[in-house]
Amino acid sequence: MWAYAGQKHRVNTDLLIEREKASFDLTELTYIVDGGPQKTRRRRCIQTLALNDTDFQEKDPAFLSRDEQYTSIVRRSTLLVKKLKELNLTDMSDQDIYRQAALRMKNSIFTVHDSMVIPMLQTQADETQKRKWLPKALNYEIICSYVQTELGHGTFVRGLETTATYDPSNQEFIINSPTLTSTKWWPGYSGKSANCCILMAQLCSQGKKYGLHAFIVPLRRFDDHELLPGVKTGDIGPKLGIGSNDNGFCRFDNVRIPRENLLSKYSKIDPDGTYHPPNNDKMVYTGMVLSRIALLALSAQMLDVGCTISTRYSAVRRQTELTPGGEEPQIIDYQSQQLKLFPQLAAAYAFRFAVHDIRTRCDQIQADIKSGDISSLQELHGLSAGMKSFICLSANLGLEVLRLSCGGHGYSQASGFPAIYGVVTGTVTADGEYSVLMLQTARYLVKCVAKAASGEKLPHSIAYLTTKPESKCPAKSENDILDLETLVNAYKHRAYRLVNEAARQLTQGIQAGKPQHEAWNDSHVYLIKAADAHCHYYTVMNFVQYLQSTEMSQPLRDVLTSLCQLYALYGIESNAGDLLQDGYMSGEQISMVTNQVVALLAVIRPNAVALVDAFDIPDEMLGSILGRYDGNVYENLYKWAKESPLNQTEVHHSYHEYLKPLLTASPVDAKL
Amino acid sequence: MWAYAGQKHRVNTDLLIEREKASFDLTELTYIVDGGPQKTRRRRCIQTLALNDTDFQEKDPAFLSRDEQYTSIVRRSTLLVKKLKELNLTDMSDQDIYRQAALRMKNSIFTVHDSMVIPMLQTQADETQKRKWLPKALNYEIICSYVQTELGHGTFVRGLETTATYDPSNQEFIINSPTLTSTKWWPGYSGKSANCCILMAQLCSQGKKYGLHAFIVPLRRFDDHELLPGVKTGDIGPKLGIGSNDNGFCRFDNVRIPRENLLSKYSKIDPDGTYHPPNNDKMVYTGMVLSRIALLALSAQMLDVGCTISTRYSAVRRQTELTPGGEEPQIIDYQSQQLKLFPQLAAAYAFRFAVHDIRTRCDQIQADIKSGDISSLQELHGLSAGMKSFICLSANLGLEVLRLSCGGHGYSQASGFPAIYGVVTGTVTADGEYSVLMLQTARYLVKCVAKAASGEKLPHSIAYLTTKPESKCPAKSENDILDLETLVNAYKHRAYRLVNEAARQLTQGIQAGKPQHEAWNDSHVYLIKAADAHCHYYTVMNFVQYLQSTEMSQPLRDVLTSLCQLYALYGIESNAGDLLQDGYMSGEQISMVTNQVVALLAVIRPNAVALVDAFDIPDEMLGSILGRYDGNVYENLYKWAKESPLNQTEVHHSYHEYLKPLLTASPVDAKL
Repeated sequence: MWAYAGQKHRVNTDLLIEREKASFDLTELTYIVDGGPQKTRRRRCIQTLALNDTDFQEKDPAFLSRDEQYTSIVRRSTLLVKKLKELNLTDMSDQDIYRQAALRMKNSIFTVHDSMVIPMLQTQADETQKRKWLPKALNYEIICSYVQTELGHGTFVRGLETTATYDPSNQEFIINSPTLTSTKWWPGYSGKSANCCILMAQLCSQGKKYGLHAFIVPLRRFDDHELLPGVKTGDIGPKLGIGSNDNGFCRFDNVRIPRENLLSKYSKIDPDGTYHPPNNDKMVYTGMVLSRIALLALSAQMLDVGCTISTRYSAVRRQTELTPGGEEPQIIDYQSQQLKLFPQLAAAYAFRFAVHDIRTRCDQIQADIKSGDISSLQELHGLSAGMKSFICLSANLGLEVLRLSCGGHGYSQASGFPAIYGVVTGTVTADGEYSVLMLQTARYLVKCVAKAASGEKLPHSIAYLTTKPESKCPAKSENDILDLETLVNAYKHRAYRLVNEAARQLTQGIQAGKPQHEAWNDSHVYLIKAADAHCHYYTVMNFVQYLQSTEMSQPLRDVLTSLCQLYALYGIESNAGDLLQDGYMSGEQISMVTNQVVALLAVIRPNAVALVDAFDIPDEMLGSILGRYDGNVYENLYKWAKESPLNQTEVHHSYHEYLKPLLTASPVDAKL
Repeated sequence: MWAYAGQKHRVNTDLLIEREKASFDLTELTYIVDGGPQKTRRRRCIQTLALNDTDFQEKDPAFLSRDEQYTSIVRRSTLLVKKLKELNLTDMSDQDIYRQAALRMKNSIFTVHDSMVIPMLQTQADETQKRKWLPKALNYEIICSYVQTELGHGTFVRGLETTATYDPSNQEFIINSPTLTSTKWWPGYSGKSANCCILMAQLCSQGKKYGLHAFIVPLRRFDDHELLPGVKTGDIGPKLGIGSNDNGFCRFDNVRIPRENLLSKYSKIDPDGTYHPPNNDKMVYTGMVLSRIALLALSAQMLDVGCTISTRYSAVRRQTELTPGGEEPQIIDYQSQQLKLFPQLAAAYAFRFAVHDIRTRCDQIQADIKSGDISSLQELHGLSAGMKSFICLSANLGLEVLRLSCGGHGYSQASGFPAIYGVVTGTVTADGEYSVLMLQTARYLVKCVAKAASGEKLPHSIAYLTTKPESKCPAKSENDILDLETLVNAYKHRAYRLVNEAARQLTQGIQAGKPQHEAWNDSHVYLIKAADAHCHYYTVMNFVQYLQSTEMSQPLRDVLTSLCQLYALYGIESNAGDLLQDGYMSGEQISMVTNQVVALLAVIRPNAVALVDAFDIPDEMLGSILGRYDGNVYENLYKWAKESPLNQTEVHHSYHEYLKPLLTASPVDAKL
C-alpha cells in the first residue's frame, strides 16, 4: 500500500495479519479496478497533490452547521477552480479525480455548471450563442445552474408549467411561473450560488405552445449578486444529506430575456415569432443518459467506500465469545457477519465491472452520434435507465446492511455511513425515480420481445430474448452449481421468462379490451420485476464476460471467480421463487445454492481485507474512523468525540438556564 | 375527524374525496387502534392539552444546530416535569401520551431516568437505598442515566471491562476504566445532562471477580454540575439522527463511592468484603425484555407515521399521464405506487396487533413474576428478542420504501422522513443488534425442537413445533388462497420446516465432530432464517387471531381482512422460494399468490387514506408537510423553505468572501 499523509501510523495488529493472509497481489487488483497501471499511477499522483494541499483542509462537516457547510464548500469550490488552472489539469477525468480528493468526495458548487451547462452550450447553442456564452462560462464569469424540476412536477417533463412567451414587439421572451406548483424546485447550487441558469420552459408564440425548450436566464446581477427584478430564488431547506448543496427554488414574474437566449442549434424562433422545430428530438436522450450513468457510477463507488469501512472495522472489532472462555474473536469470523459483508463486497465488484462496460458503450455511442449514427442510442437508454435504478437501489440497500453490520458505532457520524447514505439514497430518486426508470426499461424490453417474435435482430445485451433458453438447470452437484456458464444461464432463463410473462400480461389486458395505458398500469408489478431481472442478468453476465476476457494471474482469477460465484448464487438464493416456480431449478438445487453461498463465505474470508484495500481509497476520502487504514479505531473515536460542539464547555449553558432551577440539591448531597 | 389546532384549514379536494370514499367507520377503527373508546377519548384529551400549550412550541429542529436542538430539549424536558406535576398526571401511560405530544415524539432528557433508573431502584435497591435515592430521583433532585455499553464492548456484557474494586479499609468501591476500550460509550442523556448514573461494572473483592453489578455513581457535583474528581464525561458527537440526545462517554480514574452504593436487593457485600451472590439471576431478563418491547413498539408506531405521510401525499400528488392527454392522475392510482404503499400499511396494522399481544403477555408475565412465578419469562424473552429484530428491521426497510415513494420531496427534511428514519434505524442496533437477538430466539427455538421431540408440552406461541404440519398447500383456486387459515398454515409450515432444518444443520455439525460453538457459528445462516420465519408466522397468526376474536362491524372486518390477506400474501411472494423448495406450494399456487397481491392492491385503494387517518396522528406529531391532514402540501413547502437558515439574507455572506473575487463580470453583462 502506498502511504498517504494520514496513513503512516502504527497499524492495528489484526489488520496487519489480515493483510499478510491475502492470496493474491493487491497491486494487480488495484490496476484492474482503475483500468490499468497507468491509470492507477496517474490517479494516485493527482490525489496526492490534492490531499497534501492544506488549503483544502476543513473540519469534519458533522460538526458544522448547514450555513458553515455551505460556506466551506463555496470557499473550497472557488479554490478548486484556481488550483485546477494553476496545475493546468484540463482533462475531465483528471479534474474529477482532483475534485473528489480536494473536496473529500463532495461536489463543488460548479458541478452542474461544469458537467451539464457547458456541455449543453457546446451541443445546443448556435455559433453566435457559443461565442457569447461559452467563454464566460469557461472563465467562471457566470455561474450557471440547470433549472427544470418544479414543485409539482418531476419526471413527467411534458407536465412542466413554466412558460416562455414570445413578445415580437420587443423581440423578447417573457418568463412566468403561472402557478405555485410551477415554482422551480430542487435544481442544484441554484438557491444562493448561481447567478444564471439554463431554464427549461414551455415555449409559447403566436398563441401556440411548442413544448419544452432551454433558455439562458440570468437570475442575479452579475456585479453584486442581487436578485434581478421579477426573480425570486432561495434555498429549499435542509435535506436528508448533502447539506453543502443549496438546492434552490425559483419563481419568475414577467422576467424578460432577449430572443437570442433560446438555445437555438436545433429549434429557432424568427423575430416575428414564427417557430422552427428541431429536426431530431432524440438528442434530448443523451443528456439524461449521461446523468444517469454518472449517478449509477457514484452509487457503485460509494458501495466500495462502505465495503472498505465495514470490512476493516469487522477485522478490528472483537466481540462476544466464539469458544467458551476464549478471547473475543474478530466479528468478521462470525458467519452472520460474513453474510452481511461479503455479498455486498461481491456486488461492489460486480457493479464496478458493470460501470466499466456501460461507460465503454457510452463512449462508443457518443462517438457514433458525432458521426451521425444514433442507432445504438435506444439500447443505451434502455440499459442505463434500468441499471441506474438497479445499481442505485442495490447500493442503497447494501450500504444500509453494511452500516448496521457496524452495530451502534455505524450509527455515529464518525463511521462515515450517515454521510454516504445521504448521498446514495438521493440517487435512487434523482433524475428519474426507481419505478419510473424501471418501467422505461420494461417498455424497451417489451418492444424487443415483439421484435424478436417478428425475427428482427436484437442488440447484444438483449439478444437473449430471441432464443428460448433451456428449461431445466443441468447442475447435478454442488460443484456444478459453481459453474459460471450455469449461473449466467439461470439468470438468462429468469430474465427471459419474466420479460415474456410481463409482455403476456400486457397483451392479455389489451386483448381483454383494456385501453393500452390501463393494461400497462395494471401490469406494473410484472413489468418492474421483468426489468429488474434483466438488469440482474446483465450484471452477472457482464461479470463473467469480464473474467473471461481479462488477463490476470491465477491467484487473482481464483479470488474474483469466488466473488462472481457469490454474487450470482446469493442473487439466486434471494430470488429462489423465480427459479423454482416454473421448475427451472429443483428444491434440491436450491439447497445446493444455499450450501455454496455458505461455503463461499469461508472461501472469501481470508482475502476480505485485501479485497477492500484494493479499492485503494485514501482515509481522507473514506471519511470514516471505523474504516481507517491503520485500524486505530477506538483512540480516534475518542479524539473525534471531544471535538463535538456540545463539549466546548464542561457544563453546558442549558444547565444554568433550565436544569439548575429543577435540580435543587442539598449541600450534603453535593459532597457525594 | 376531530380537529386539532393545526387542522382547521381548507382541505385539499383530492383528500376530501378520498375520505368520502371510505367503506367503513373511521372512528370504529381508531377505537380498535387505541384499544377502546375510553382510551381514544383519554388520549385525545391529553394530547390536546399538550398540543395547545404554546410553551412547548419550538422551531423545526431541521433548522437548528445540534447545540440548539439539545438546548431546546433541555428546556422542554424541564417544562414537561413541571407541567406533569401541575396536571397531576401520574399514570405512566398518560405521562407517555403527554410527553409524546408535548415533545413532538422526541424523548425528554429524563427518559432513561424515568423509564429505567426509577424502576431499577424500585426493584433492585434494598430498603435503605430506596429511602435514600428514590425520593431524590422522583423529585428530580438528581438526574440519573444508565451506563453500561463500552467503547469496545456491546451486547456481550461479560466482556465489559469497567471495574468496581472493594476497599474494606474505607468501605468504598473504587471505580476504574482500566483501558481505552472500557470507556463507557453511548449511554443516553449522560454526556451533559446526567449528574449521576447507575453504572454496570465488574465487582472485585478480596482478589476475586464476581461479574457485572449495578452501582450508583455520582458524575457531577449536585450543586453546580461540575465534573467530580476522576470522572471524565462528555458528548460522543453527532449521530445519524436524534441530535437532541447527548449520548455520552464516561471514564473513571479511581473514583470512590460508598459501599452502600452497590444496589443490594439481590447481591450484597459485607464491610470486610465478603460477597453474597443473588439467589436468582433471571431477573436480569426483565429489564432487557421491557426495553426491547419499548423499541419494537416505537418502530411500529413510526411505521404508522410513515404510512400516514406517504399515503396522504400520494393522494395529493399528481404526476404523469395515465390516459394520453388526460389530467395527471393522483400517484396513488399507479399500481407501482400501490405496491410500495399498501404492503407497508398492512405491515403497520400487523405490527400494531403484534404489539398489543406482546404487551398483554408482558403485563401478565410481570404480574406472574410479582407472585413468584417466572415460568413464562423464557417464552417472552424468546419472543421479544426475535420480534424486536423482526419489527425494527421491517419498519426500517418499510420506511425507506415509503420515503422513496415520495420521490424527491421525501428526501427533504420537510417530509419528516429523515427524522423518522434517524429514530427507527437506531432501534435496529440498539439494545441488541439484529442478528444477535435473532440468534437468541433461534437458540430458544432449537431447544424447543428438542423438547418437542421428547414429548414435552410447549407454550402457546411455540406449540406448532410439536406437530408436523400438512405437507401440501390445499389451495386450488385464487379464492382458496385468500383463506386466512390457509395463509396461517403456509407460515406455520415454513417456520416448522426452517426451524427443524436449522436444528438439523446444528446437529449434523456436532455429529461431524465440531465443537458446539463452531457448529453453532457454522449454522448462523440457517438459524437466523429460522428465527425470522418464526416471527413472521407469529405476526400473521396473531393478526388472524385478532380478527377472529374481536368484535367489529362487517365493513370494517372486510377492510382489515383484506389488509391481513395482503400482509400474508405479500410475505409469501417475497419468500416464495421457501414454500416452493419442498413442494409445499406449486408454481401455479405462487402465480395465484401474485395475482391476488395485485388484486388486493385495487381492493385496498379506495380505503387507503381512511386507513391512515384512523391512526389519528395530529399534524404536530407527524412533523411532515407532505403528510398534513389538510393536504396543503405545496404552499407549506414553500413557506417552510423560506425559513431555511441559508435564506436569512438574499445574498449569502460567502458571496462577498469567495464568489465575487472569482466572478468578474463586466458592467454591460450586469444589465442582462
